[in-house]
Amino acid sequence: MSDEREKLEIEAAKLVTALENEDFEGFRSMFLEQHPYDQAKIFVKLEQEERTKLYHYLSPEEMAALFENIEDEEYNYEMYLSEMDPRFASQMLEHMYADDAVDVLNELNKDQVASYLTIMDDEAAQEIRELLHYEEFTAGSIMTTEFIAIIANQTVKSAMHILKHEAPDAETIYYLYVIDEDKHLVGVISLRDLIVSDDDLMIGEIMSERVFSVSVGEDQEDVARKMRDYNFLALPVVDFQNHLLGIITVDDIVDVIDEEASDDYSKLAAVSDVDSIDRGPLSAAKKRLPWLVILLFLGMLTANLIGQFEETLDKVAILAVFIPLIAGMAGNTGTQALAVAVRRIAMGDLEEGGNLKIIAREAGTGIINGAVCGFLVIGVVYFWKHDFFLGLLVGISILATLTVATIAGAFVPLVMHRLKVDPAVASGPFITTINDIISILIYFGMATLFMQYLI
Amino acid sequence: MSDEREKLEIEAAKLVTALENEDFEGFRSMFLEQHPYDQAKIFVKLEQEERTKLYHYLSPEEMAALFENIEDEEYNYEMYLSEMDPRFASQMLEHMYADDAVDVLNELNKDQVASYLTIMDDEAAQEIRELLHYEEFTAGSIMTTEFIAIIANQTVKSAMHILKHEAPDAETIYYLYVIDEDKHLVGVISLRDLIVSDDDLMIGEIMSERVFSVSVGEDQEDVARKMRDYNFLALPVVDFQNHLLGIITVDDIVDVIDEEASDDYSKLAAVSDVDSIDRGPLSAAKKRLPWLVILLFLGMLTANLIGQFEETLDKVAILAVFIPLIAGMAGNTGTQALAVAVRRIAMGDLEEGGNLKIIAREAGTGIINGAVCGFLVIGVVYFWKHDFFLGLLVGISILATLTVATIAGAFVPLVMHRLKVDPAVASGPFITTINDIISILIYFGMATLFMQYLI
Repeated sequence: MSDEREKLEIEAAKLVTALENEDFEGFRSMFLEQHPYDQAKIFVKLEQEERTKLYHYLSPEEMAALFENIEDEEYNYEMYLSEMDPRFASQMLEHMYADDAVDVLNELNKDQVASYLTIMDDEAAQEIRELLHYEEFTAGSIMTTEFIAIIANQTVKSAMHILKHEAPDAETIYYLYVIDEDKHLVGVISLRDLIVSDDDLMIGEIMSERVFSVSVGEDQEDVARKMRDYNFLALPVVDFQNHLLGIITVDDIVDVIDEEASDDYSKLAAVSDVDSIDRGPLSAAKKRLPWLVILLFLGMLTANLIGQFEETLDKVAILAVFIPLIAGMAGNTGTQALAVAVRRIAMGDLEEGGNLKIIAREAGTGIINGAVCGFLVIGVVYFWKHDFFLGLLVGISILATLTVATIAGAFVPLVMHRLKVDPAVASGPFITTINDIISILIYFGMATLFMQYLI
Repeated sequence: MSDEREKLEIEAAKLVTALENEDFEGFRSMFLEQHPYDQAKIFVKLEQEERTKLYHYLSPEEMAALFENIEDEEYNYEMYLSEMDPRFASQMLEHMYADDAVDVLNELNKDQVASYLTIMDDEAAQEIRELLHYEEFTAGSIMTTEFIAIIANQTVKSAMHILKHEAPDAETIYYLYVIDEDKHLVGVISLRDLIVSDDDLMIGEIMSERVFSVSVGEDQEDVARKMRDYNFLALPVVDFQNHLLGIITVDDIVDVIDEEASDDYSKLAAVSDVDSIDRGPLSAAKKRLPWLVILLFLGMLTANLIGQFEETLDKVAILAVFIPLIAGMAGNTGTQALAVAVRRIAMGDLEEGGNLKIIAREAGTGIINGAVCGFLVIGVVYFWKHDFFLGLLVGISILATLTVATIAGAFVPLVMHRLKVDPAVASGPFITTINDIISILIYFGMATLFMQYLI
């Protein structure tokens, strides 16, 4: 990797020099040889003055290819657009795939969007306006309208002719969607099947009528799952009357899968967004501090709870020794059960047996784990402190705590899922606190009850 | 989702009935209408008797399409293969894409592999043998050899002719790779470009000579990253002399991204594999218990450490109240810093400044977070316990603990990365224990030092 990065940096340095020397030809020949993804990587590192020159050196179409490849984390679309001549900017947006243009426009305020759409070509503006309506995280919000639709009543040869004509503008040409006169989706044919078919065959004869499609309001995670399971390169998007509205291509789905996974991961780690780049300690602190403050106050609750048992603690100070062990084990088992439940929900893998079955299984798991750990603890404490009752107390606490904490870890996300709240939100603070409280109540409750055996 | 699942279950019931009634025609017409992914879903739920019938009802080629779609988690390849007639099984393996066949064979022992390869067509056996050599998790292990390679010195028309001929067997037809007489990779042309080009143009004129490729030993995560960043549908795989060996298609990469993400997630949650399906409490316990036992013994270390301060605790029992708060906050900040570092390493996003810069930034983040949380604690404890010195002790402990824990959270995965150990392994037990120990040493150390202000 580092070799490639080095090479890119050398190229970038050369390009900056070309910009500084106003070497139009030299810059263009070097820059356009780069893949648009690398162009974007270089672009975001330029100074404003250099960027302004670049806008004059590239065509709107070339700029569009670059702009499509700016990564989400680095976006500063508004700033870049404001640096461009408005006409250049809207021509660039016109040349972008509609779904990518919509991503950019979603970062601007309404007035800015309206002004770019006004100076844009009417047809492109209309397409973008329609896409802007769809809610975030739905199929509609990630689909594009640059697909190839054909009618069934024509030959392979004539379909190939249409394909040749439309290929330069379509986001994918590897599936052709077949529609009837009312734009209902009635079939699909892959380019592979088209190519191996005889020129004179009719599309209606060779198309597949069993078309997989997603509905425009469907959650993007569900779309991603379908695409992954069935290995499609694109999926058509339809409304409730089966009108073909757009397509979703596999590259967008790769991004969705990536985002969703790191979203779950971020929440488990209690960081607002693990993947955004930190510019310095302040921006990193801003991302983590809100969680820490919540956790701090929840921790105070736990401290307060222990405070209730101060009398017990005063008499048997050694009890304090095992607090982190018991609370820690409760936190660990809870996190395990939670992570399994969250992933299962995210992957749509909830078994038929329903939630009760899951809870029952988690209870079983908790008892097994609790029993094993409990016995180990009794043994270790006995040999270490030569105090059988203390060992018994800690061991039974571990058994009870692990059982309850495991159930809680699975129960909370399932309930949140039922309540249509993203279960991953529960990961950090909730489970840890609930389990801290449970473990301390069990441990000190038992210690207070059986005090006479401990002193 | 549940509608679709219901539909699939109804279909499955009908198919089982057809199998039971030995309705050959009815079964085939219904079954082959299903997408191979759904066929696989139905297949894995059948009883052995039904499966045996199914092997007789389907051709090796039809069975191959189904077999390619059995999900990793559900695999029981060995059992299925042993139920088939050996000749049928090896014909099926022949019809599978080579990379998928290799996945299946990797689950068998050497003798079994050898016996299937012996009865297989020589050419197919040779291809599979070569792929079996590559190490797991490398580009070689996920590539396939069913690609289309052409020479530069021919017209578009003749390339299209080759394409039509080879399309049915190739895993992707959307990129044609151009090689010289020694099989060196010299160019690439997308089907899109081929289709819009005039028939009489030469491939050498229109191909792109700037081919992105990956080396056969490259890590599959690096390959996935490239494919995601550059939005390729396939990438060619070459050896160190730039000979074209195979291709990797986007569907395999989607699986890699998915696996890697859930692998990191599993390790953060200290579960061996969050995504494998639990059949019952015992299998779930088996996945989690090893981690819990490790954590238990590490927890004992912490308990032992607190035990060293028993004298201090005896005098000031209230100190125990804040143990879970301080240890918990250390654990939380450590997990945050760790999660950020692990993801950054996984995404190849390590900044140029190097590790020192990251550590310095984390130290800054830790101090900011520690200062904010520390001041909050001083205030809360003062109002709650009316004890300024206790508040000061807890507050300063939080400041010191958070700073050190944040640094540790980033430092450990960076060191592991340097030592070529997967940094995600550190997630669970390590960081938590290190931070427990750090926080207790700081808290009780200070309490013991400043004892006179507390009593």
